[in-house]
Amino acid sequence: MSDIGQDNPVLVELTRGTTVESCHRGAIAVADAQGERVLALGDVEGPILPRSAIKALQAMILVESGAADAFGLSDAELAVACASHSGDPVHIEAVRRLLGKAGLDESDLACGAHWPISEKVSAELMRGGKRPLPIHNNCSGKHAGMLAAAVHLGLDPRGYERPDHELQIRIAGLISEICGVRLSGAGAATDGCSVPTWPLSLAALAQGFARFGTGTGLAPARAGAAAALRRACFAHPVLVAGEGRFDTIAMAALAPSVFVKGGAEGVHCAALPELGLGIALKVDDGAKRGAERAMAEVLAALVPDARTALSDELEGELLNWRGVRVGQIVASPDLLRALASLEAAPRRAEVSARSTV
Amino acid sequence: MSDIGQDNPVLVELTRGTTVESCHRGAIAVADAQGERVLALGDVEGPILPRSAIKALQAMILVESGAADAFGLSDAELAVACASHSGDPVHIEAVRRLLGKAGLDESDLACGAHWPISEKVSAELMRGGKRPLPIHNNCSGKHAGMLAAAVHLGLDPRGYERPDHELQIRIAGLISEICGVRLSGAGAATDGCSVPTWPLSLAALAQGFARFGTGTGLAPARAGAAAALRRACFAHPVLVAGEGRFDTIAMAALAPSVFVKGGAEGVHCAALPELGLGIALKVDDGAKRGAERAMAEVLAALVPDARTALSDELEGELLNWRGVRVGQIVASPDLLRALASLEAAPRRAEVSARSTV
Repeated sequence: MSDIGQDNPVLVELTRGTTVESCHRGAIAVADAQGERVLALGDVEGPILPRSAIKALQAMILVESGAADAFGLSDAELAVACASHSGDPVHIEAVRRLLGKAGLDESDLACGAHWPISEKVSAELMRGGKRPLPIHNNCSGKHAGMLAAAVHLGLDPRGYERPDHELQIRIAGLISEICGVRLSGAGAATDGCSVPTWPLSLAALAQGFARFGTGTGLAPARAGAAAALRRACFAHPVLVAGEGRFDTIAMAALAPSVFVKGGAEGVHCAALPELGLGIALKVDDGAKRGAERAMAEVLAALVPDARTALSDELEGELLNWRGVRVGQIVASPDLLRALASLEAAPRRAEVSARSTV
Repeated sequence: MSDIGQDNPVLVELTRGTTVESCHRGAIAVADAQGERVLALGDVEGPILPRSAIKALQAMILVESGAADAFGLSDAELAVACASHSGDPVHIEAVRRLLGKAGLDESDLACGAHWPISEKVSAELMRGGKRPLPIHNNCSGKHAGMLAAAVHLGLDPRGYERPDHELQIRIAGLISEICGVRLSGAGAATDGCSVPTWPLSLAALAQGFARFGTGTGLAPARAGAAAALRRACFAHPVLVAGEGRFDTIAMAALAPSVFVKGGAEGVHCAALPELGLGIALKVDDGAKRGAERAMAEVLAALVPDARTALSDELEGELLNWRGVRVGQIVASPDLLRALASLEAAPRRAEVSARSTV
């Protein structure tokens, strides 16, 4: 059993009154497409499970295989294939269209069902005395994309979610190349939606997202597939998550400078195409509030407009049930120090360049 | 700004496949009524906010003031005054009766509203197109108890939730004496339900719960109030939390050996009257899954029947959306080591006693 980074620093703190009530430890890697590290805070070498943060990498096969072209998939359908969606009508319709174009339907989805992330849709289902269906699962777009790729590749779509299915073996191979690792079905854990999730390091993920964001180091067809998925998500940020959610807010405001995608258990990844960087972070305890706050801080340190676009997230106000401000979610001193050195780095490089003139 | 225990050990780990995916650090104190420590794992001296874990201590004034007798409160009404309830009809009815006996109604509650913990009740509200009311707040019983105490004491019930209200000053004084600390309104943070929550240490809380569980070190009237509240919660464990929830399951199976109550942000406290011990723990990151798992392990180490009663909790099986077993929540090596020494301690004491004969 591999171990979790024992010495990861506190990234985010929760204050209430004058007390630090809770804290979230974790690790953050920022790297370029060659794997050169701009930031390595905490253990960025140990294995983590990337969960839904790499849905865009899992969706690469849909484009690279030619399935997206063959089925005439729209940007909306590609975006929802990369999504952890809220289950709003706009998401459900996009997933249904994607399945229909591949000649499949909802009964082919192996993701299982959960109540939609959208409270409104959940409430509507409850009002109608209904239960959620697999298509409401936040992963149904990813599953529809996997099914479409399997059909186009001439593979039996049945069992497409299993680690030893040819589709998952190919996806593992593709992610291995993008991230510079060697993933195998034998090492796979099972995700909440039943597809494999493979252990790999934050450093490898950061490099992989730098490549996903730029195409650097990828074969032309693969770089084209990455560009197509980025474009699709940038065109439809609401389809990648949903109204009011972090990834949608960030991409709606910051595309094409920022591609960002969160996953379960506190994983969050981003690609910054213009800066040529990838970001991968995980909060040890799996808390989304910690991961989103840490990602907001890293983006604010690197991307000029991010501080304004993510101001609510960065304010981190904690309100109680009567709307009274009772505390705040704040970046830890360790995180702020690490990001200050990150922001100072390019200036230092300029100074050093000038001093050699 | 006070700091959170930087070196707290990992208490609980989440495994998925062969990877430790996430972990929860924290601290645990077990002490007797004199404050002698049976276990001190991690930082048990630093301030934590006890939140709803001390609702039974906050309810002491309701009995000690004579309000419970004067209003003829039943055990059910006392139990719901100590509760973080699910909002099921049985809870709502008990809170309404408590308010009614004190000549008050729901409009006096200052706790604010949230969707009931009970999914069934939430679904029913949604089906009816309704919003939750303050009485659905899991803290409404505590608030009703506070209001009843204020009325009986001749205090203006308006503003009863504020740290400078005479009622809250008296409650702070009472908890200070039970826990051997000095709480003040000035140091109070604001809880989710708008009443004060005061920073104090896990060591002080553990001693306080040992006293609450035994009456040792308390004036007779106060010891009687503690006994009345314990009896009420033991008679109605479902009113203290709700069907399927940790505290209800534990007390339904283990009363009168175990009184146990969780709070927000990973705080969990217990009293073991027969062993004369109190337990207080907090998970640094605030995760309930970590706190409940850690409490289950401590109870299993100390109370003979707890391992059987809490077997589901101790199994910690993680199922995905299709019901497939994908991982497990397990006690960490550090926690298991600490608890092994705890279980071995009485035996060591016996050996040493025999060897001196």
